[in-house]
Amino acid sequence: MKEEKFLRQMNFLIEADKMKSIYRQTYLANGERQETDAEHSWHFALMAMVLYEYADQDKVDLDRVIKMALVHDLVEIYAGDTYAYDEKENVKKEEREKLAADKLFVLLPEEQGNAYRKLWEEFDAAETPDAVFASAVDRLQPFINGYLTKGRMWQKHGVKSEQIKARIKTIEKGMPDIYPYAVKMLEDAVKKGYLKE
Amino acid sequence: MKEEKFLRQMNFLIEADKMKSIYRQTYLANGERQETDAEHSWHFALMAMVLYEYADQDKVDLDRVIKMALVHDLVEIYAGDTYAYDEKENVKKEEREKLAADKLFVLLPEEQGNAYRKLWEEFDAAETPDAVFASAVDRLQPFINGYLTKGRMWQKHGVKSEQIKARIKTIEKGMPDIYPYAVKMLEDAVKKGYLKE
Repeated sequence: MKEEKFLRQMNFLIEADKMKSIYRQTYLANGERQETDAEHSWHFALMAMVLYEYADQDKVDLDRVIKMALVHDLVEIYAGDTYAYDEKENVKKEEREKLAADKLFVLLPEEQGNAYRKLWEEFDAAETPDAVFASAVDRLQPFINGYLTKGRMWQKHGVKSEQIKARIKTIEKGMPDIYPYAVKMLEDAVKKGYLKE
Repeated sequence: MKEEKFLRQMNFLIEADKMKSIYRQTYLANGERQETDAEHSWHFALMAMVLYEYADQDKVDLDRVIKMALVHDLVEIYAGDTYAYDEKENVKKEEREKLAADKLFVLLPEEQGNAYRKLWEEFDAAETPDAVFASAVDRLQPFINGYLTKGRMWQKHGVKSEQIKARIKTIEKGMPDIYPYAVKMLEDAVKKGYLKE
């Protein structure tokens, strides 16, 4: 075995530990604190596994989607978490994440680094069937935690129901049977005052 | 689609959020705080993905191992985390986790719950090639964080090098080429005083 190759892989895996120190704009379901990128990535992967039957199974490869989930937020180690509803920051997000990817994936042996970068880019473009399902799950997870914590983070940032509606629209594409439930939850959140109309 | 089935799946996924509130006896690599079960499960899955080439690839199915990683600690939602070096608690661990599994996996639709339970049992028995590789990764991850944090948790619990040596022995079976590195790290940890002889 090639020692240099292994040491690069270990170095990448140690760097990945920083995902446990990046706090997202989503509270844990019990409201205790904000969740980390590592926790979100795990929950996203588990959710994809559990809800796979609602994807277009003829076209979606669950094993690829799970791998996407595991790597989809790694660039945030250098780019930081950008709140989905922060319009100003989202303009600069693409450039920031591209630079982060340049820095991160080269830590790995070339072939492996390129493969992971491609997987992240595919997720980010949200066009292939795998990425469409992955995006739907990635948006469902924080939406549910937002609802369970009575919209505390939405209120903090003054998020409006129209903004969330636009964002969860992705669920319709990736899990069409689930979408009506998300819409119902959103309507209920407005009714209960978790969220501005 | 069957509404009752979907609602059970959602209920399970919401219950799974509790994995973000179970703190392990492992510090983050930067020493900031202890890592959660959710964070560990993600890191374990990513590590399996990155280090798969050191497994017996003819026999080990990476996609199954990743799924094992995602579900392997779920029973701790009810059973809690048991420190690997707490001999007294480990005697009761098996029974406690069995009861937890009885409570947890029935939340899911029957077929799905049974499949996940079997996957967890297979991991726990550490006998099949998939579970042997999974166990090796599951032990490598906290060992590395222990080393990087200069054995702070080992010292806190008075763990001795012989105990760790016995525990990382599993790495030899699942990733034989990696094992010598783990042994070297352990020797170095003793030399540096991170750990008692």
